[in-house]
Amino acid sequence: MSIKLTILGCHSATPRENAHPTAQYLEIKSRNFLIDCGEGTQTLLRRHQISFSKIKHIFISHLHGDHFFGLIGLIATFGLYNREHDLHIYGPKGLKEIILLQLKHSKSWTNYKLFFHELESRESELIYEDKKVEVHTLPLDHRIYTNGFLFKEKKGERKLNMEAVGSYPEIEVCDFHNLKKGKDFRSADGETTISNNELTFPPKKALSYAFCSDTAYKPELVPLLQGVDLLYHESTFLEDKKELASITKHTTAKDAANIASQANVSHLILGHFSNRYKDLDAFISEAQTIYKNCSLAETGKIFEIKS
Amino acid sequence: MSIKLTILGCHSATPRENAHPTAQYLEIKSRNFLIDCGEGTQTLLRRHQISFSKIKHIFISHLHGDHFFGLIGLIATFGLYNREHDLHIYGPKGLKEIILLQLKHSKSWTNYKLFFHELESRESELIYEDKKVEVHTLPLDHRIYTNGFLFKEKKGERKLNMEAVGSYPEIEVCDFHNLKKGKDFRSADGETTISNNELTFPPKKALSYAFCSDTAYKPELVPLLQGVDLLYHESTFLEDKKELASITKHTTAKDAANIASQANVSHLILGHFSNRYKDLDAFISEAQTIYKNCSLAETGKIFEIKS
Repeated sequence: MSIKLTILGCHSATPRENAHPTAQYLEIKSRNFLIDCGEGTQTLLRRHQISFSKIKHIFISHLHGDHFFGLIGLIATFGLYNREHDLHIYGPKGLKEIILLQLKHSKSWTNYKLFFHELESRESELIYEDKKVEVHTLPLDHRIYTNGFLFKEKKGERKLNMEAVGSYPEIEVCDFHNLKKGKDFRSADGETTISNNELTFPPKKALSYAFCSDTAYKPELVPLLQGVDLLYHESTFLEDKKELASITKHTTAKDAANIASQANVSHLILGHFSNRYKDLDAFISEAQTIYKNCSLAETGKIFEIKS
Repeated sequence: MSIKLTILGCHSATPRENAHPTAQYLEIKSRNFLIDCGEGTQTLLRRHQISFSKIKHIFISHLHGDHFFGLIGLIATFGLYNREHDLHIYGPKGLKEIILLQLKHSKSWTNYKLFFHELESRESELIYEDKKVEVHTLPLDHRIYTNGFLFKEKKGERKLNMEAVGSYPEIEVCDFHNLKKGKDFRSADGETTISNNELTFPPKKALSYAFCSDTAYKPELVPLLQGVDLLYHESTFLEDKKELASITKHTTAKDAANIASQANVSHLILGHFSNRYKDLDAFISEAQTIYKNCSLAETGKIFEIKS
């Protein structure tokens, strides 16, 4: 089990030469997800040699420009490259209208199929599921309707202990399926029972990644984030701008650390920095007064976790 | 009289690290115009230290993404910086709807006034005029409704020849206005007439800049471009892709040179290069078989003409 997260952009508000708005690329169980898509994202994808064609699902947190102004350009570029794969877009209601209006006026309808999964619930909901991965929304508290996203590997099957299995001639290949599912072995005549624990190893831990941007400090997120392996939480401001954070519905580094600490996450990534701060190390210093295991997001930085 | 043109982006289709879609910044008679606004334009404006607040008029040629996907981001950024000046946007019908829809969904209405001047005429028309400058559309032939723009300095007043004027005591200060306008001097009693040519110098030549992107080869433009001092004409392709140029309604370097030659322009700038070409010097070589005085557009390159 492994999760690989590439930070493309991690600053707030307006794009600058070396401060790109939010975009992340997540690899989880061979799925490739793009999370938010600020202006310039397609150029950053190229810079980090991320194949456009691998992206089949894009998750947009909210309709502030620094989180989605790059989406229409990416969709158009996919079209120019004769993409054939379907593209699924998950984001707030309104996004479909915005994209389709621009495609209509440019007469640039895509050859590939574009599916919009528009969100409007204020409760956490399952929005994507396949055999190996689930994605849930994390309702955030921002100036407009906003969701974070929780990406979870599904628990894998138990692994056969072939040495132990081999010592019981009555166990046949057709029994393996049930053993992997965690069931005890029972012989056909019902006379022999062998505990599953004796025959299998537990599966590797299913990993999870939570993306929370943008939001005011919201302790109600803690139960949803409990035990997450990797948490990206916005920290637009430091405590010196706590009032501004409150007015604009953003979080300070200290409060992001509070969330990470209360939710017992394994690692915290801070991001969505206001351009007013030149010394980003101050974000780490402030967060570490509460929670030690944290890092700064940075363009091109890769966070990889394995179990 | 002087015109200063800064090339921000000059490539076609998708933005890349070192190949930016169309955007230009024109300074003419202390007016500051932005022409087209591909994704990433605001970052390029910063790179070239062009003040956001000076831009009061934006001209958008057409609604293909590589010419306007950066506009919504620029409008949003102006808002974040508490712009107060009005902003006028000239572009095809549909642009207003696209911009307003995004501002609505992001709840990011601007504090400054936004005026849309939507275009739909297929004939050249005067779309901007003040005391010193005029802007006319140049109807182009592309896959969707597209205009180029002709920016013209207005002819200035004649300059008084003070030595000559001083030699006629009957000429008073209140006569200067008429002399500058080119009228002959006539004394109040009607007895004395002095030719204007004797009393004034001609005004400096009024300069003009024409922007033509994107378009198929369109000889009908020639009369509209006659004698222009500086012409930017798209040359997406070389002659090796003449058929593709025809299908996609673009122009080859050779045909751009044909337009420049037939219209007797003083200088031609080639741009809107397809990313398939790595050696852009080939565009100059091809164009110069027809028309010598030409240059390649290039990010950051400045073209300045004076009279």
